[in-house]
Amino acid sequence: MSEDLRLAILGAGGRMGRTLLHLAGETPGLRVAAALEREGSELAGTDAAGLGGPPGLRVETDAGAALERVDAVIDFTAPAASVAIAALAARRGLVHVIGTTGCTPGDDARIVEAAAGARIVKSGNMSLGVNLLAVLLEEAARALPAELFDIEILEMHHRHKVDAPSGTALLLGQAAAQGRGVDLDGTSVRVRDGHTGARPQGAIGFATLRGGSVVGEHAAILAGEGERIELTHRAEDRAIFARGALRAATWAASQPPGLYSMRDVLGLARPA
Amino acid sequence: MSEDLRLAILGAGGRMGRTLLHLAGETPGLRVAAALEREGSELAGTDAAGLGGPPGLRVETDAGAALERVDAVIDFTAPAASVAIAALAARRGLVHVIGTTGCTPGDDARIVEAAAGARIVKSGNMSLGVNLLAVLLEEAARALPAELFDIEILEMHHRHKVDAPSGTALLLGQAAAQGRGVDLDGTSVRVRDGHTGARPQGAIGFATLRGGSVVGEHAAILAGEGERIELTHRAEDRAIFARGALRAATWAASQPPGLYSMRDVLGLARPA
Amino acid sequence: MSEDLRLAILGAGGRMGRTLLHLAGETPGLRVAAALEREGSELAGTDAAGLGGPPGLRVETDAGAALERVDAVIDFTAPAASVAIAALAARRGLVHVIGTTGCTPGDDARIVEAAAGARIVKSGNMSLGVNLLAVLLEEAARALPAELFDIEILEMHHRHKVDAPSGTALLLGQAAAQGRGVDLDGTSVRVRDGHTGARPQGAIGFATLRGGSVVGEHAAILAGEGERIELTHRAEDRAIFARGALRAATWAASQPPGLYSMRDVLGLARPA
Amino acid sequence: MSEDLRLAILGAGGRMGRTLLHLAGETPGLRVAAALEREGSELAGTDAAGLGGPPGLRVETDAGAALERVDAVIDFTAPAASVAIAALAARRGLVHVIGTTGCTPGDDARIVEAAAGARIVKSGNMSLGVNLLAVLLEEAARALPAELFDIEILEMHHRHKVDAPSGTALLLGQAAAQGRGVDLDGTSVRVRDGHTGARPQGAIGFATLRGGSVVGEHAAILAGEGERIELTHRAEDRAIFARGALRAATWAASQPPGLYSMRDVLGLARPA
Repeated sequence: MSEDLRLAILGAGGRMGRTLLHLAGETPGLRVAAALEREGSELAGTDAAGLGGPPGLRVETDAGAALERVDAVIDFTAPAASVAIAALAARRGLVHVIGTTGCTPGDDARIVEAAAGARIVKSGNMSLGVNLLAVLLEEAARALPAELFDIEILEMHHRHKVDAPSGTALLLGQAAAQGRGVDLDGTSVRVRDGHTGARPQGAIGFATLRGGSVVGEHAAILAGEGERIELTHRAEDRAIFARGALRAATWAASQPPGLYSMRDVLGLARPA
Repeated sequence: MSEDLRLAILGAGGRMGRTLLHLAGETPGLRVAAALEREGSELAGTDAAGLGGPPGLRVETDAGAALERVDAVIDFTAPAASVAIAALAARRGLVHVIGTTGCTPGDDARIVEAAAGARIVKSGNMSLGVNLLAVLLEEAARALPAELFDIEILEMHHRHKVDAPSGTALLLGQAAAQGRGVDLDGTSVRVRDGHTGARPQGAIGFATLRGGSVVGEHAAILAGEGERIELTHRAEDRAIFARGALRAATWAASQPPGLYSMRDVLGLARPA
Repeated sequence: MSEDLRLAILGAGGRMGRTLLHLAGETPGLRVAAALEREGSELAGTDAAGLGGPPGLRVETDAGAALERVDAVIDFTAPAASVAIAALAARRGLVHVIGTTGCTPGDDARIVEAAAGARIVKSGNMSLGVNLLAVLLEEAARALPAELFDIEILEMHHRHKVDAPSGTALLLGQAAAQGRGVDLDGTSVRVRDGHTGARPQGAIGFATLRGGSVVGEHAAILAGEGERIELTHRAEDRAIFARGALRAATWAASQPPGLYSMRDVLGLARPA
Repeated sequence: MSEDLRLAILGAGGRMGRTLLHLAGETPGLRVAAALEREGSELAGTDAAGLGGPPGLRVETDAGAALERVDAVIDFTAPAASVAIAALAARRGLVHVIGTTGCTPGDDARIVEAAAGARIVKSGNMSLGVNLLAVLLEEAARALPAELFDIEILEMHHRHKVDAPSGTALLLGQAAAQGRGVDLDGTSVRVRDGHTGARPQGAIGFATLRGGSVVGEHAAILAGEGERIELTHRAEDRAIFARGALRAATWAASQPPGLYSMRDVLGLARPA
């Protein structure tokens, strides 16, 4: 008898948490069993229905207690919280999907430890499409020689974004560098203005556009003599990160404990 | 001691032949040793320099004799000629790069036979970029479930093109169908006009643009809920087919006899 | 003393009505004074706050009474309702913004009559961007001779759309035809499949893509010998139609009675 | 009785000169009557057919003599030469099409003087498409308020280009600034890297891509809340500049003396 996967949503009152509550409720095979907020949140004790969750479920703050009755935790929070949750998840063999960014090497080491017991999927970008694009780009960069094809990464985001290039653009640059077997830091060109000279062979160039309400668009261009390949991802709404995280949870539920990436979820991981 | 690969260019007086003569002369490691035209051509006996080839080489019409002194044959001609050349190439263990289109299953069977002795690379589109795009698309179609992502193929060509969709668009459609494990004929939607109804799940759609002098542009779009991937190829000039053929010749020179595709040349063939 | 423009929102319980209620509340200079639903709606009498409107306002069904206390009506409903509202608006000199589609020539004639008293803005597509694109395309089509440049219209919409090409694609085709001084019906090519022959000079071609959740993308391509211009519009969310309608209402409030288009609102109408 | 326009091609042995000779020979209504090279050129006295011109015409170096028997001069040379030719053209009332770049204000003043007698068309970019795009962008920038829409200019060129942004990108930036009634220097953002902060309202941003053999692609993006307009030009080959110059010559032949731009040729000049 197949049963629904019972989820705990961390940061339930935030923008991503609400999206997760809403989408999990629409996804066959998933059931929201806990909506968590941090200690002291004014949402504590209110009905999760107010956040898009199932009616009758109360928002709670004690993660340890909540995790007793779930199979999987979805976590877009902060490094310290994610490390603590990973340890709890390890003890109970839970699925732990981590979309948290900004982890230090020390944080990552503790997450690796937790993966001895937990089924952890961790990624800086949970979108299926972006992760697939990175795999395809790595493969293209491997197949097309750097003497013949130049690689450029272009991204556009809304007018409120305060840094450049985007984390996802850098992730794509890393994928390209890995496909070529080079180091991104030594080959990236991030500014072009005035007299630049000719393009250095092997460079990986970045260009940034900002404007309007663009959720996020990324293109990797491989330009050779007489032909070009462009690999583009267009995000239409931020819910794709929530969708990817829910898909990761479902996938991980049938895996042995370990640390996984979205490439594994897509079935596209490189053989070791 | 490394020596240049000696090439025979078939159809030397045609547009593709002239491009091959010109580019082969510029490519390190290659040397044009024979420029061939069909029996009765008025170019027979003239200096190949008039076609962009090396000065002092005469255009000849006896393929059998010419193939005695070459290592590789580049052949964008017609099915009957390609089948005959393949047999000659087999006898001498030559490289035979076949860009000819329109072969019947019978022709293909004889080419397979010849591949017992010759190192044959055959493809309907010799561009590195298009072949890579097909591989990436097949992989993307395999990774993204048909319930979630819709696949569309868009192409644009110049105003003189008389058929639609292009052969390359169909080749991309085949790659998508193969990635999904379905039959293209049963799933393709090639016309949309008037009341079409909603898009059938699993369909592979085609759309065609015509205008100006566009050499050839193809895009495969994988459109899901909230995100899209677009895989695009832009051909800037027709010489990319000649470049791909010359690269295939160089690659095949170090392979055992057999029948290869451009995927093999790119190092991207699927394991059997 | 400047006062807020008082709005009535028709079809307040529908998707567009709710978006209008929400955005009008955020727009300086506008105030929602009436939220209307059709006779018999179960929403009648409920608080408009439930639909995104201002708290304390009741959803009502008597348009005649409601229009007594507003300056402008926003109307994305159905032809019969729009014609009736236009007559009411004429009597009181109101602004009437009509986004309704499907009007017959008879309906349009009655709306023209109403424009003797009302300030009516009517358009099949209320987006600022689409209307600007149509103006630019008309101008481009006038400047670039049909012997040199071919015009193609491409559109993509989500998988649920049931007709092709989109109304907006046809609107763009009309703009192109008008710029060239030709009739769209006599020049449009809406299907290409199989042996099509070369592109007829002067043709205006259409191509349609369907997939995912794409809100609406349109491109007009003018392709000549050696160069191309592409004029593209990308809608990210459906709220742009509501935003355009609210902008039209503000603009029309300072105009004399008459029938206006979105081109007038943009300040881009052709001189008569 | 209509007669062919007799052309003198300056710099006949250069890349642009050869393209002009070739295209002029293909264009109805035009006839190459003089192929000019600089004093001391080794091409002097050779048959212009070797450069793609009409057989039997000799390459000459005395511009003064050659201009006696032509109606129009096409000139992609250098400022000093262009200024001297303009004076000659003025004396004889000739058409003078100037694609030369790098003129100082002093040079430009002398060209203005010459335009009292000659019919001069001068532009930094002779492509019909780019000039049309600039007009459309200026109009779009005028219609869409800077509080609502952000403008970005993106360009891509081949790997050998040594400066950024391209002259054409800056020309488009100027058109956008003019449409908005602002100064480009005060509003342009040419570099984004690291912590940039949010996009300043009213900024005109630039981004540059380099790679492969791309002839030249430019896009102006107007990004608002929920929608975007993209105005794109793609050059496929450099002959578009020659084509535009020939078209300018034909157009100018029926105009009174004066200084014209490609906007005039397109029939899109702003009323004074």
